[in-house]
Amino acid sequence: MALVVQKYGGTSVGDIERIRNVAERVAKTYDAGNDLVVVVSAMSGETNRLVALANQVSEFPDSREYDVLVATGEQVTVALLAMCLKSMGYKARSYLGSQVPIVTDSSFGKARIKRISDKKIHADLKAGTIIVVAGFQGVDQDANLTTLGRGGSDTSAVALAAALKADLCEIFTDVDGVYTTDPNICNDARKIEKISYDEMLELASLGAKVLQIRSVQFAKKYNVTVHVRSSFNDTAGTLVTKEDKNMESILVSGITYAKDETKIAVMRVPDKPGIAARLLSPLADANISVDMIVQNVSEDGHTDFTFTVTKSDFKKALLITKEAAREIDAKDVLTDESIAKVSIVGLGMRNHAGVATRMFETLAKEGINIQMISTSEIKISVILDAKYSELAVRVLHDAFGLAGKDVRPE
Amino acid sequence: MALVVQKYGGTSVGDIERIRNVAERVAKTYDAGNDLVVVVSAMSGETNRLVALANQVSEFPDSREYDVLVATGEQVTVALLAMCLKSMGYKARSYLGSQVPIVTDSSFGKARIKRISDKKIHADLKAGTIIVVAGFQGVDQDANLTTLGRGGSDTSAVALAAALKADLCEIFTDVDGVYTTDPNICNDARKIEKISYDEMLELASLGAKVLQIRSVQFAKKYNVTVHVRSSFNDTAGTLVTKEDKNMESILVSGITYAKDETKIAVMRVPDKPGIAARLLSPLADANISVDMIVQNVSEDGHTDFTFTVTKSDFKKALLITKEAAREIDAKDVLTDESIAKVSIVGLGMRNHAGVATRMFETLAKEGINIQMISTSEIKISVILDAKYSELAVRVLHDAFGLAGKDVRPE
Repeated sequence: MALVVQKYGGTSVGDIERIRNVAERVAKTYDAGNDLVVVVSAMSGETNRLVALANQVSEFPDSREYDVLVATGEQVTVALLAMCLKSMGYKARSYLGSQVPIVTDSSFGKARIKRISDKKIHADLKAGTIIVVAGFQGVDQDANLTTLGRGGSDTSAVALAAALKADLCEIFTDVDGVYTTDPNICNDARKIEKISYDEMLELASLGAKVLQIRSVQFAKKYNVTVHVRSSFNDTAGTLVTKEDKNMESILVSGITYAKDETKIAVMRVPDKPGIAARLLSPLADANISVDMIVQNVSEDGHTDFTFTVTKSDFKKALLITKEAAREIDAKDVLTDESIAKVSIVGLGMRNHAGVATRMFETLAKEGINIQMISTSEIKISVILDAKYSELAVRVLHDAFGLAGKDVRPE
Repeated sequence: MALVVQKYGGTSVGDIERIRNVAERVAKTYDAGNDLVVVVSAMSGETNRLVALANQVSEFPDSREYDVLVATGEQVTVALLAMCLKSMGYKARSYLGSQVPIVTDSSFGKARIKRISDKKIHADLKAGTIIVVAGFQGVDQDANLTTLGRGGSDTSAVALAAALKADLCEIFTDVDGVYTTDPNICNDARKIEKISYDEMLELASLGAKVLQIRSVQFAKKYNVTVHVRSSFNDTAGTLVTKEDKNMESILVSGITYAKDETKIAVMRVPDKPGIAARLLSPLADANISVDMIVQNVSEDGHTDFTFTVTKSDFKKALLITKEAAREIDAKDVLTDESIAKVSIVGLGMRNHAGVATRMFETLAKEGINIQMISTSEIKISVILDAKYSELAVRVLHDAFGLAGKDVRPE
């Protein structure tokens, strides 16, 4: 008998019919002899409805009250799912975040989990009760309701699995699992059977929006094996788990791309200490996130300083940068709004020379020019002309042998 | 500086525009120097929407989970109202029933308040914060959410006023106050300026659905003065308060009628001890409420036994009564489905002979036959042919001088 935590997202509980389907899947897992804790999100559309109400009241609604408001979304779902299970003859009980309790800090709207009490839930599980927990929400030490931010239900599920020492955490969503790249671009993209936390973190932050990034950090920290799978079929999905030796035999696990970036280059900056800070700190003050940063080696006392920001921040970032560039006597500010970032991610590249070379050669063979390069231990990102992004993904997917059957050893 | 509890019903907070209006009224009361606790219901229509979801899941939804579900209605309203007040620059804070806490028993769907903690609210009030409390909901001692039943927000407000020792409890609704009778029947019906708890209890239970009856019982028990008034204007409404000498100078305060009653008469019942119980207990077992009961004096060892039930219970009650009548050898069971109950209510009638006589004479003068009579200390009810009910209300309203200007001394 195993203790299983299952999480169902908003689409999976989008209407009463789907809630009934979830109840049947839950019942099947319970009937197979498992103890079961089910975490659910708000019915799809519900959070947006509540947010719209808040925005009718105020452009900047108070964050404490905002959490009180949106927390009702998950409360509705847990009540309906528990009702449904009970009407099917099962023992079930809903828990709000405040009833578990899932104690968080007081950062309304983006609270962080501090501790989870397992006492009441373990007692209920022992009595054969199926536990239905509201995802996304918690309570601070002064009994204020808090929420974990969009997608926080994944984090709730992984955190509960960690606190309850569950054997498995299943995240049910509307996709089959994590793919080697976007199947819309590359039709031989392949579902990954098993991936390490670190690879998943790089893939998630780069755009494979299957699992919320914080939930992966949680899973890594507490060593929770997460099974990402579809709630609409019984196919096995992707196991996100601690790395093992076999994983390293694969150079590259996945390829991601992002097209919402823009490039700003400050030309012929006097190469003195403190220049980077003087260019970047006004952007940070304006709450603009800078993604890639590249500074070339100096030439005759001057250097070029280039960085990327998202399209939505571009105009504001450009204004701020021009002002800063003038102050530090830079020669010029150049921009490019049609760029894309393509990245390859894989544990294997830590120990294998030549991965970067193979990437650059593959792109060169297609005549794709690389504008910027940035690397981490398990990731290499390049900036290139946006019109080449799909082509780049496809040729890299092929070059690193990701197509077709999963060759990763089980 | 006074401590005021204000309660706004579902119509008064039915959309964001109305919530804004409520916020403005609240702000005005606060600006006048009062400490303020505001109790709100769910936005009109919201509870019905939630109930419909529950009924899609199950015909008989689990009562614990039902309360978890419907409690979200008030949670949405408190968040939006507190948001609104904060966006207007006021200090405000929402409280759920579980956060006050309002501790109830565990009778889900119809919980009774056991105790209310005033500590946190008093601390917040002292800091100048406007308190916004979710009506209708509480929490039992095991942290389960509970609800007080339909209209329970009135009870929440009065109970909070009692617990906080408030100076006044204002119930804002969509009517101006309590009237001497239904203005739709009697166009010179007059708003009552001041009425005792006991009179209000008789008027409320008889159909003047302005205040939930349990809230009046609460107000009486804890001596809370309740001001029932409209949220759409600034006119003074009706004060429901402890009785004073002046109230007794008025014989009759109000006249009510109910047309949803039916009459069942068991004829020639052997007049032996235990007969009433043998007739009524099977009805109680079937959860049918019997309203008026009349048993005439015995004649040659037999009596007639008559009672009324609501129209919706009629068929079931008749079946049960026929069965019971056969068992006790009654001669016959007669019915009348077109009757009405008309009642006069007033503290004054306790000390004045002749009120009943005046009532009966007034009806006789119009040729209205009285079928049954039932009296309490401050109420006389008669059953008559349904077609005469409006006429009866009008002539009685006139006979007891209720029309026109309020003559009750302040």
